[in-house]
Amino acid sequence: MHVVVNAAMSADGKLSSRRREQIAISGDEDFARMDRLRADSDAVVVGVGTVLADDPHLTVKEESLIADRRDRGEPAHPARVVVDSTGRTPLDAAVLDDAATTYVCTSERATIDDRMDLSNRAELITAGDDRVDLLRTFATLQGQGLDRIMVEGGGELIFSLFEVGLVDELRVFVGPKVIGGRDAPTLADGEGFVAEFPTLELEGLERVGEGALLTWRTAER
Amino acid sequence: MHVVVNAAMSADGKLSSRRREQIAISGDEDFARMDRLRADSDAVVVGVGTVLADDPHLTVKEESLIADRRDRGEPAHPARVVVDSTGRTPLDAAVLDDAATTYVCTSERATIDDRMDLSNRAELITAGDDRVDLLRTFATLQGQGLDRIMVEGGGELIFSLFEVGLVDELRVFVGPKVIGGRDAPTLADGEGFVAEFPTLELEGLERVGEGALLTWRTAER
Repeated sequence: MHVVVNAAMSADGKLSSRRREQIAISGDEDFARMDRLRADSDAVVVGVGTVLADDPHLTVKEESLIADRRDRGEPAHPARVVVDSTGRTPLDAAVLDDAATTYVCTSERATIDDRMDLSNRAELITAGDDRVDLLRTFATLQGQGLDRIMVEGGGELIFSLFEVGLVDELRVFVGPKVIGGRDAPTLADGEGFVAEFPTLELEGLERVGEGALLTWRTAER
Repeated sequence: MHVVVNAAMSADGKLSSRRREQIAISGDEDFARMDRLRADSDAVVVGVGTVLADDPHLTVKEESLIADRRDRGEPAHPARVVVDSTGRTPLDAAVLDDAATTYVCTSERATIDDRMDLSNRAELITAGDDRVDLLRTFATLQGQGLDRIMVEGGGELIFSLFEVGLVDELRVFVGPKVIGGRDAPTLADGEGFVAEFPTLELEGLERVGEGALLTWRTAER
């Protein structure tokens, strides 16, 4: 399994404003790059916070990329995966439509009713007591043949993935805006590290549109 | 007056951990670059939070750069400026030693006693009722012949400077670490913008040591 985290942040490291509204940080070039990365993935993973804030569809947009996937014998779109400890994914969320297979990953903290409802709309994976056990969940995804994983955020999920050591690569588009705010969501939120910070290696650095794309690999631990 | 904000942040936009301990984000190459920038400045500005957390000296370290300054008829070190609304700068802070001229900028909220004590150790500038009025303060600094201004943080001061439109250039070293944490200080904290985000132009992008240096110019507003 290879896990790539891909995100766009402002010049000061924010994913959106303190109001958690979606802000156009990247431009067309970065969007096209992200779409190609989706098309090269078996699954696209987001946290439920992102579903609640942005209601993304997480499908490949460019028709030629979809055609290429079909030519390779793959489904039109990668599988969609929502990490949702308490089963808060709305039943009318765009990710639950029939455009692609969707996995909703919950913990035992989700009620049986919510799990029943979600299991009518998605493949349900339950692992962990209070929070989704990411190692077990990702092992289950791998068992389903999902090997090339793209994570699109948000900051809580990204931090948790670094915490358990699941991130192989971090691609960050840094956009030409300042958002600011001590309460604005950042690329990696959660509790935060206070020692043994994950160490990265800068693999690539290039100008993309009006911003910069930094490609990091996680160093061996 | 030309104001350059210079800071080092982790790959996820943090200046330090939630414990506010100093973390080595940059390496020798970036340190040398920062020292050259100090040597090319008339004043180095920090917020009092940085003084309380790190107790920096803010002087030029490289002897040859100090010699160059003397050759140009400049003082050995740039002036040091602390933005400190309530007069919390400790009297034994390293910035208050006699290595260079120091300005402590307070608001009317600082007690008379604290202002008296600080005025024995530094040049005192008082502007603003509850918070330092940055526009008036920077105008006063300019009146003292301080034209090339380098701001070294922290995130509260940097946000406030963007808020009042005083930033001409933002140089960010992005280092090869993940710090994480919703409560960790970021490059721009404060209230945060929710609309009319300051827009930047990417002027330079280069690898420095193990990280990336992004040089942004603020776009005309």
